[in-house]
Amino acid sequence: MKISARNIFRGTVDALRTGAVNSEVDLTLSGGEKLVAMITNESAQALELAAGKEAVALVKASSVLVMTDEAGIRLSARNCLAGTVKAVTSGPVSAEVTIALTGGTEVHATITHNAADELGLKPGSAATAVFKASSVILGVPA
Amino acid sequence: MKISARNIFRGTVDALRTGAVNSEVDLTLSGGEKLVAMITNESAQALELAAGKEAVALVKASSVLVMTDEAGIRLSARNCLAGTVKAVTSGPVSAEVTIALTGGTEVHATITHNAADELGLKPGSAATAVFKASSVILGVPA
Amino acid sequence: MKISARNIFRGTVDALRTGAVNSEVDLTLSGGEKLVAMITNESAQALELAAGKEAVALVKASSVLVMTDEAGIRLSARNCLAGTVKAVTSGPVSAEVTIALTGGTEVHATITHNAADELGLKPGSAATAVFKASSVILGVPA
Repeated sequence: MKISARNIFRGTVDALRTGAVNSEVDLTLSGGEKLVAMITNESAQALELAAGKEAVALVKASSVLVMTDEAGIRLSARNCLAGTVKAVTSGPVSAEVTIALTGGTEVHATITHNAADELGLKPGSAATAVFKASSVILGVPA
Repeated sequence: MKISARNIFRGTVDALRTGAVNSEVDLTLSGGEKLVAMITNESAQALELAAGKEAVALVKASSVLVMTDEAGIRLSARNCLAGTVKAVTSGPVSAEVTIALTGGTEVHATITHNAADELGLKPGSAATAVFKASSVILGVPA
Repeated sequence: MKISARNIFRGTVDALRTGAVNSEVDLTLSGGEKLVAMITNESAQALELAAGKEAVALVKASSVLVMTDEAGIRLSARNCLAGTVKAVTSGPVSAEVTIALTGGTEVHATITHNAADELGLKPGSAATAVFKASSVILGVPA
């Protein structure tokens, strides 16, 4: 597989909750982090997802928010991965931020240039990558 | 809280509709605008969302479309906020557009440079910010 | 309608599956391609969606991933449209990629500059546009 998603996380399915049209899937990544994905039931069936199965979670960099201070707030986003900023590349409108998690996994986020400035992101800053379960695409070995 | 989301709307929960895995949440913003968010049931429970509770709605600028003419079409997107373009910042690929709503709230959208050109966006143009309920992350005071 | 979405696909509704809060909608585009959209039930009712009805599917370029090699993987994303790269415009952080499908439809994706480089995207390369059902906004004639 070669795909543009900047975030390709390898892991194992922990659990699957099935609704009328959507399924929620819990994963544990190889670095120990927990992820939650929301996919359609048809996809869950087509991929034969089940506890114990290997899977990859794909997340576009543009789906990831960067939080530097979580004081005073609790968020609905199911995926909040804490780490340290490794790199920031800024253009006139966009900026790409790489966050290294403690387990070694790297998370890429594209945010606005203004947001990167306001948050004062630079290598070494503590930062949390935040994304919704619905932003995750799952893949399984063919 | 310090987070990269360009759009942080403060409001109050009006109503909550709970499905098998997802919940739909209606909010009224402090400026009087109505928003709809789609989050997982686990999040709705974890945040103890209920009618009357204060909440913030976070929306990434990259999740927002800009519409300048809605003649002839009705959209499935639950959030359509009409206002006036306040600023446009253009890069080679992306453009950031700020729309001021009548209540004073500002909405930020990142769209392609080409889209901004084709729509002829400039300060003073009428424009509507459009985003899906599933693009909204909710937060509550911790 | 004038809207910033780079992808506006015209088609016809094939089928509708309704859950507790969300509905999944199958479309056939005028070029013959199949699309799947996930919208709220309230939207499906408000738009009076039903098999046979004309609809447009709007997809932001930033919601589209670009895949150049699908060997070894099966993805949960419901929309995978194969074609050929027609153009790549690169900025310092972002790149816009246009993929021409066999039926003539063009799909626009904004990905990171680094992803475009790593995938070696250039006019004539085979590429597949990938996006989730939840990234699609539907519209119907007013």
